[in-house]
Amino acid sequence: MVAAGLFLSFEGIDGSGKSTQAQVLADSLRAMGRDVVLTREPGGSAGAEEIRRLVLEGDPDRWSAETELLLFTAARRDHLEKTIRPALARGAVVITDRFADSTRMYQGLSRGDLRGAVDDLHAAMIGVEPDLTLLIDIDPEVGLGRANARAGKELRFEGMGLDLQRRMRSGFLALAQEFAGRFRVIDGGRSAEAVAADVLAVVRGAGV
Amino acid sequence: MVAAGLFLSFEGIDGSGKSTQAQVLADSLRAMGRDVVLTREPGGSAGAEEIRRLVLEGDPDRWSAETELLLFTAARRDHLEKTIRPALARGAVVITDRFADSTRMYQGLSRGDLRGAVDDLHAAMIGVEPDLTLLIDIDPEVGLGRANARAGKELRFEGMGLDLQRRMRSGFLALAQEFAGRFRVIDGGRSAEAVAADVLAVVRGAGV
Repeated sequence: MVAAGLFLSFEGIDGSGKSTQAQVLADSLRAMGRDVVLTREPGGSAGAEEIRRLVLEGDPDRWSAETELLLFTAARRDHLEKTIRPALARGAVVITDRFADSTRMYQGLSRGDLRGAVDDLHAAMIGVEPDLTLLIDIDPEVGLGRANARAGKELRFEGMGLDLQRRMRSGFLALAQEFAGRFRVIDGGRSAEAVAADVLAVVRGAGV
Repeated sequence: MVAAGLFLSFEGIDGSGKSTQAQVLADSLRAMGRDVVLTREPGGSAGAEEIRRLVLEGDPDRWSAETELLLFTAARRDHLEKTIRPALARGAVVITDRFADSTRMYQGLSRGDLRGAVDDLHAAMIGVEPDLTLLIDIDPEVGLGRANARAGKELRFEGMGLDLQRRMRSGFLALAQEFAGRFRVIDGGRSAEAVAADVLAVVRGAGV
């Protein structure tokens, strides 16, 4: 925990349903009277959203993986300073749709030699992990089908196909082992209601 | 040396005359038939210029020193990949008006606790130093007078006054000792012609 509040992240491959689950959890906790800040990466603060646009708009190949990693880390630093830390300091529950684990996967795994740089940058400039990370685990084909059904959103990472989805799923499950203390793996291959009930039970078990 | 060409940087406090000297040296070497790429930081490639605008435009306080450092390092990585390395690979002389030493000063010195982060990021994501760094050394009051005489340019860093100029001058001289192998200190308190003659002699002595 980085402050008085509780810092939760949702992770998972595209189409896993994590964004829906983050929203449902935020609604449930608010209905219980909690102060909740729902946010997402890349983005989550005014400056980070500007950096997000710089990375995701325009020719997808205009930035190298290394430059993209630096830009995403800059966005995360701004998100942490402007949105996450102030909310935790006042005791809120912060729910973020993606955090550093996504960078470990999308930059660190898709370019295997970059994981070391990802970790170096995280240690030097971010240093914080969520108290609890909910990995919504789903069959890569199901996830890809859902992601493709969404109109053109986030094509930047979602256009890469099933092989990448499979590698990302394996990678997220390996991360869940690497950071077993804060990861909880939730079976996302069920109804949204069933998944949401599991998510809420896990979060309440963490003392919310 | 990072490749077949020669990589030169100019450094110095604002108003030192380094930008003028970089231009004069480029002209001299071109007149001698050399392939010269004259560039500058922050910026120096299309992507890096976009990042430069993101950092330098708008409210000067909207980015923390840490986020600014990450953004400048992203810009440097793009500059290195898109401008510096290709030019060196074809055997050109690259002359850059500022490089990593400016970050060591303006981010690392003005926020003393950041020098470690500056060095960590440089080691992880840049890793390259110029073959030769020409430090144009000048009295801080003279430099500030010249900088203020220029109309509103780069107010972002030039608005901070004499005390900062003094600390930056001392800092650059200390860097010249830390990296004595590649630094050459040139007395900038003379006519532009006299300074240019010294610069050219130093560069020719390096084998150009």
